[in-house]
Amino acid sequence: MAAAAPPPPPSPTPAVISEDLLPTGYNVFSRIRLATIVDVPHIHKLIHQMAVFERLTHLFSATESSLSSTLFPENSPPPFTSFTVFLLEVSQTPFPLIDQYYPNFSPIHKTVNLDLPITDPQAETFRSCGNDVEVAGFVLFFPNYSSFLAKPGFYIEDIFVRECYRRKGFGKMLLSAVAAQAAKMGYGRVEWVVLDWNVNAIKFYEEMGAQIMQEWRVCRLTGDALQAFANINI
Amino acid sequence: MAAAAPPPPPSPTPAVISEDLLPTGYNVFSRIRLATIVDVPHIHKLIHQMAVFERLTHLFSATESSLSSTLFPENSPPPFTSFTVFLLEVSQTPFPLIDQYYPNFSPIHKTVNLDLPITDPQAETFRSCGNDVEVAGFVLFFPNYSSFLAKPGFYIEDIFVRECYRRKGFGKMLLSAVAAQAAKMGYGRVEWVVLDWNVNAIKFYEEMGAQIMQEWRVCRLTGDALQAFANINI
Repeated sequence: MAAAAPPPPPSPTPAVISEDLLPTGYNVFSRIRLATIVDVPHIHKLIHQMAVFERLTHLFSATESSLSSTLFPENSPPPFTSFTVFLLEVSQTPFPLIDQYYPNFSPIHKTVNLDLPITDPQAETFRSCGNDVEVAGFVLFFPNYSSFLAKPGFYIEDIFVRECYRRKGFGKMLLSAVAAQAAKMGYGRVEWVVLDWNVNAIKFYEEMGAQIMQEWRVCRLTGDALQAFANINI
Repeated sequence: MAAAAPPPPPSPTPAVISEDLLPTGYNVFSRIRLATIVDVPHIHKLIHQMAVFERLTHLFSATESSLSSTLFPENSPPPFTSFTVFLLEVSQTPFPLIDQYYPNFSPIHKTVNLDLPITDPQAETFRSCGNDVEVAGFVLFFPNYSSFLAKPGFYIEDIFVRECYRRKGFGKMLLSAVAAQAAKMGYGRVEWVVLDWNVNAIKFYEEMGAQIMQEWRVCRLTGDALQAFANINI
């Protein structure tokens, strides 16, 4: 159990104190990196948790094997040219700074200062490449295309942060990482969908600069209705 | 000017006559094939016509050059693994049957019988690889991904048929071609968006088996709001 830190000695000048120097709080070190095939067991569990959260487990049929073969096929294309996963990891100790390099991406590090420590009841299940590192969330995205701009963009299919890590800025960090990557690559747009009744999410996205396209509706052809096209005489 | 066909001689038996045998009408031969870089001038004009139709020319900034470099980059990935364009061509004479082969796609041919011939005021502008062939429309699509299914799908960004070719089944033919390709490849979904006030389009899509996802709203981060992420300290 962590003891409360003693109050700091009175400052000789009542200057603004940098947040970094505050003697209270708990540091959580976080890192966003590109996932690889060895992360599939964690990705599978995260997607399942997302299905539980969205009460859509009846639509969940992904397996570790099907995720491996579709997200990380043999002769995988370079990151960002097809389906891409950023993993969010957290640790109580700093991450090594040089740990993964691609021509156009290097991991993002951020230290978050919290009033209370995080207790992760599934720390063992989500332990990742290190004694003290846990997977806390992910974002899955892939290129899309705007023909008016004649530019690629990114479409975010999933963004998910495990329950005990929510409301600490990690969702914003994952979304920002995708937006930053798109901007750096000269891409035109980042798009995703939100449920119309999720007013908190809509407010959060609007504060990040997103427009909500109120008039558009997603159309989906799936299941038997899609299979019916396999052998039709067009 | 086409002369009216003479009436058929009286049939000895008043049997049901197959539609194929009706002596009246005009045959239009149509073909859906994969576009290549040489088709970019036509694709550019089609996208511009779409922008005019949608009253969104202020958002149109594509050039032939930017379309070429983004849709058909050097070392283009195989068809269907990235941005893909199907072109719809029409002719008054049959297309050759063997004209383009890829491992998992060969062109789709359909003969449409119409009561009246089509007059194409832009036939010269849209003339394509043959004296008698015009580009009539296109569909631009690319892979998307369902993490619940652990399967790719297709997202249709644009589907467009030039004005004089509308209401003749060509839009359905283009959409069916993408759906058929998805089904043949074992993909899980085909998705696109529609404007909520476009009730005719919604009815058409529902009749093709699509669900309209009423609760979902598209979020878009673009322009300055996206560029702001290029240099942020996440």
